[in-house]
Amino acid sequence: MTPSAKATHTLPRRVSIREVGLRDGLQSISAVMPTAHKLQWIRQAYDAGQREIEVGSFVPARLLPQLADTAELVAFAKTLPGLVASVLVPNLKGAERAIESGAHHMLVPLSASHAHSLANLRKTPDEVVAEIGRIRAARDASGSTIGIEVGMSTAFGCTLQGRVEPAEVLRLLQAVLDAGADRVGLADTVGYADPAMVQHLFEAAFTVAGDKLACGHFHDTRGMGVANVYAALQTGISRFDACLAGIGGCPHAPGASGNVASEDLAYMFASMGIETGIDFDKLMALRGQVAGWLEGETLHGTLWRAGLPKTMRLAPAAAPALA
Amino acid sequence: MTPSAKATHTLPRRVSIREVGLRDGLQSISAVMPTAHKLQWIRQAYDAGQREIEVGSFVPARLLPQLADTAELVAFAKTLPGLVASVLVPNLKGAERAIESGAHHMLVPLSASHAHSLANLRKTPDEVVAEIGRIRAARDASGSTIGIEVGMSTAFGCTLQGRVEPAEVLRLLQAVLDAGADRVGLADTVGYADPAMVQHLFEAAFTVAGDKLACGHFHDTRGMGVANVYAALQTGISRFDACLAGIGGCPHAPGASGNVASEDLAYMFASMGIETGIDFDKLMALRGQVAGWLEGETLHGTLWRAGLPKTMRLAPAAAPALA
Repeated sequence: MTPSAKATHTLPRRVSIREVGLRDGLQSISAVMPTAHKLQWIRQAYDAGQREIEVGSFVPARLLPQLADTAELVAFAKTLPGLVASVLVPNLKGAERAIESGAHHMLVPLSASHAHSLANLRKTPDEVVAEIGRIRAARDASGSTIGIEVGMSTAFGCTLQGRVEPAEVLRLLQAVLDAGADRVGLADTVGYADPAMVQHLFEAAFTVAGDKLACGHFHDTRGMGVANVYAALQTGISRFDACLAGIGGCPHAPGASGNVASEDLAYMFASMGIETGIDFDKLMALRGQVAGWLEGETLHGTLWRAGLPKTMRLAPAAAPALA
Repeated sequence: MTPSAKATHTLPRRVSIREVGLRDGLQSISAVMPTAHKLQWIRQAYDAGQREIEVGSFVPARLLPQLADTAELVAFAKTLPGLVASVLVPNLKGAERAIESGAHHMLVPLSASHAHSLANLRKTPDEVVAEIGRIRAARDASGSTIGIEVGMSTAFGCTLQGRVEPAEVLRLLQAVLDAGADRVGLADTVGYADPAMVQHLFEAAFTVAGDKLACGHFHDTRGMGVANVYAALQTGISRFDACLAGIGGCPHAPGASGNVASEDLAYMFASMGIETGIDFDKLMALRGQVAGWLEGETLHGTLWRAGLPKTMRLAPAAAPALA
């Protein structure tokens, strides 16, 4: 065979890993992590160089008691200079609480799958679009500068509905931008995406959203998570959701276990010479800490078993000492 | 951000997964799998559509008692029409046994890392190049049509030596082609590669080897296995080594655990519309069988937990019945 194509990508020089373990991870674990542990997690993630953390979700505590302390976590996260405190909100009511909390950023999920949208939010996708318009109006009326990002979930397929048409994803992207979203992202909520699907849908989404397309969210349910991140990176995406230790899932998407692991992504980017600002020793120490807190839960990720390659370990030692 | 590059790859339409679980997998598991189980494995892999199997290695039985029955496995594999019976040989003596066995194909490993080469074969890379010349002469003198493929191991780095220079990999590729290798492949023996390294080294290797560059071999030690396969696929590679259930490693490369899982690769290719000829139900049934035989061993791979997406499950059922 001969090389059928020359890859001539210019990969981003800097990539941001948005830590969503405290929200997407913990919401799918029935045990409630004590607030003190969450505060320590946020502190250590910050010390390890993470600069955007989805600390929780403004949903009714009776639905997700695991995330009932979100306002307290936002307040703490805001004390750490340069940290973007992000929250998930399912509706206008949640958005009002997010505005009130002073969070920097809110993520509004919209399922491209009608079946998943009804199961997850009890609204059709177009009803969610209308709600996003109301959220935008409330944000503007409040004078808040909180960012509104729409995460297009089940963009690559759905365990309930099956196939999700790319044309429907693109239609909804345009609709939420028209409704006032500041940024949008695409999520493979249930692990149905492959790298070719990712390439095609992100390229198409760029034509709709331009530089407002600003996040990739991938679950590793079928082992494609890291490859899908790489495929999205090749299209120009430079911000990715990930969960430390690969925890996560979706309560309304059976089998949607495991976000791509933050530490595995950080390793891939660092190995490729892409800056993330992350200190590996500190991130791996935090992983050990969180694993201890979550004893008995199934964790994921691969790097923690083997550690960094000798070639990456040698690099810092070879650099001249500062002292 | 804006799309920094448009990916315009033409991916191969058909990809071959060379099953190396019976060799690379079993050689790193201390228990000896009974020959009867191996015969059943080969039979079921064939029934599942696999068409190239590395059934074992012609090394002294005192070194690898797990692979002592290789000649018997070759004899059986040759009874299955269209199956390529492949073996690994470390030197001329092994090659003579491979020729005698009637195997279709032999894989000669050459470590681009001098340290790994000495540890694994007790020869420098250039001594192995010379041995490949002798193997080619012996093959030609015998009148055998057995193919000679050189697998360039530790091409992306080495746990013993650390960094391996791409220029040295390319020099050795040229040398083994000059010495008479029919085909060459690049192997990330210890899981140090990232997708960008894979893209660059395979592109460079194509300029040296042209269509004689015909295999990618990736370990998933640090979670990059599938992403690396995708990166190699984008450069035009359409034949990949893999182990069912992700077993494998290298006895002389500490931490080199786990080849990329055959079933995960088969899933990725199928999802992308690339033909492999593999029947998933049969491959997953075989995985369950092999997992039973290897009870107590650490297995890998991800697809087996979640199964195929609903979207892929629906496709065959939606096709008109033949009866």
